[in-house]
Amino acid sequence: MSGAFIAVDWGTTNRRAYHVEQGSVIATERDGLGVLSVRAAGFPTEVAALRTRFGPLPVIMAGMVGSNRGWHDAGYVACPATVETIAAAVVQPEEAVWITPGVHIDAPERADVMRGEEVQLLGAVAAGLAPGDALLCQPGTHNKWATLQQGAIVDFTTAMTGELFGLLKDHALIGSEMAGAVDADASFRAGVDASAEADLLATLFGVRAASVLGKRAPGEAAAYVSGLLVGYDCRARLREPGQTVYLLADGLLARLYRAAVTIVGGKAVMVDSQASFVAGITQIRNFMS
Amino acid sequence: MSGAFIAVDWGTTNRRAYHVEQGSVIATERDGLGVLSVRAAGFPTEVAALRTRFGPLPVIMAGMVGSNRGWHDAGYVACPATVETIAAAVVQPEEAVWITPGVHIDAPERADVMRGEEVQLLGAVAAGLAPGDALLCQPGTHNKWATLQQGAIVDFTTAMTGELFGLLKDHALIGSEMAGAVDADASFRAGVDASAEADLLATLFGVRAASVLGKRAPGEAAAYVSGLLVGYDCRARLREPGQTVYLLADGLLARLYRAAVTIVGGKAVMVDSQASFVAGITQIRNFMS
Repeated sequence: MSGAFIAVDWGTTNRRAYHVEQGSVIATERDGLGVLSVRAAGFPTEVAALRTRFGPLPVIMAGMVGSNRGWHDAGYVACPATVETIAAAVVQPEEAVWITPGVHIDAPERADVMRGEEVQLLGAVAAGLAPGDALLCQPGTHNKWATLQQGAIVDFTTAMTGELFGLLKDHALIGSEMAGAVDADASFRAGVDASAEADLLATLFGVRAASVLGKRAPGEAAAYVSGLLVGYDCRARLREPGQTVYLLADGLLARLYRAAVTIVGGKAVMVDSQASFVAGITQIRNFMS
Repeated sequence: MSGAFIAVDWGTTNRRAYHVEQGSVIATERDGLGVLSVRAAGFPTEVAALRTRFGPLPVIMAGMVGSNRGWHDAGYVACPATVETIAAAVVQPEEAVWITPGVHIDAPERADVMRGEEVQLLGAVAAGLAPGDALLCQPGTHNKWATLQQGAIVDFTTAMTGELFGLLKDHALIGSEMAGAVDADASFRAGVDASAEADLLATLFGVRAASVLGKRAPGEAAAYVSGLLVGYDCRARLREPGQTVYLLADGLLARLYRAAVTIVGGKAVMVDSQASFVAGITQIRNFMS
């Protein structure tokens, strides 16, 4: 297929839509209308509303809209996953609307799933922003780390780094110490250093002990815990000294992961995740029959 | 000092009191009157009430009653900590009432604290339930692992194993999968096995992936996550094959830790924690001037 279309990155809590013409973005909009905000029967109406604004175009969607909490379960393709295998497995909930599948690992010893991130990962290569053989990272609530070979997703790991930080801050005993701001500062770097201990359950309690003993200034614990978790995550993934990580991130998460990757001995290269998504979904569309 | 006395193990949410005479328990009672349930000015009244029931005896207390949220901050003694150093540092908030200090590690690279557990640890040795050179473990919300040499606490580590389990169950995305019962069953053992990965952030998300892909029966995830955390905790602490761990625990926690210690290659010996507390506080009293 070719020609103009509407691409939608439809997540759990947010949605971003693009009017794409000949691989370029003519218009884009972002809103908080994630799948949790839409009734099961409400998706056709929402798609009609997108067409009112962007034109009566084909719509190709990725992300949680294809989960069992979304519009229509689009299933998963296995690794190695490519734009071709994903294009061949799209589902069509109504005329001129397609949802791309996720990617899963379903081995006896290990299970993992992604839904939406695969479009950015494959798109980063399609857009020439990352090489076909690379380690890519998408920081977030559930961090994705993906190994690409010859442009295919051959393996990936999800780490609940961001979710655990939120749980500790909001609900743990040490949460009362985690009121300060987080950035890639000296406290964050101290946490990344401490993550070398590989003893997360103990280093986390150390935050409480340091507070009780007056060893850490108030306001520093949040950045330290962030460094501890992000550092632990990066150390588990970077197995070779000097390894390059392509980071699909911006803002604070980009700063934190760039700092942590560097401290643990890697090299960080920033990649534009929106440009990657558009390149990925355009490639998938090109391969759709 | 010698003669009959009232010993109180006064924790955050629970309290246990013993009428001790010549090293034997004449009477004991347990209630939910932890320090969080007592107003700062209410402690003298509570002690008077204990004397009404047990007799007009000296009172020696350990635990969170000696913290800044308790009756009177009893501070900490450093490692190596013994019944002698603790007895020499008791504080006396009113006549014939003493509170024992906690134990801390306050090194440049590491901080840790305990308050109350030290009495059980030293008492296990005093009662002959553990040798003077031993690794002891007190499972709980904040697990204590202590190394004793010649009957002194020379090092210890706190792991937030129990607290993290509760946080995940009550607040994490995978919490919705953790509805089943926990015991030292096949699911728990599978979690202990998986903890060898030393990649906690990823193995925890694997619980979600396994659920989405239908790889784990409903009701098995809670025991699996428990095994993952307890196994990770034990592996971080047991550094020698065949190492013996003296477990101050009973009931479910005793079953879980005994199973995990055994799976990771150690040997578990159960120790009566109440008998240890009474022996420890009696020894401390003997050394008080």
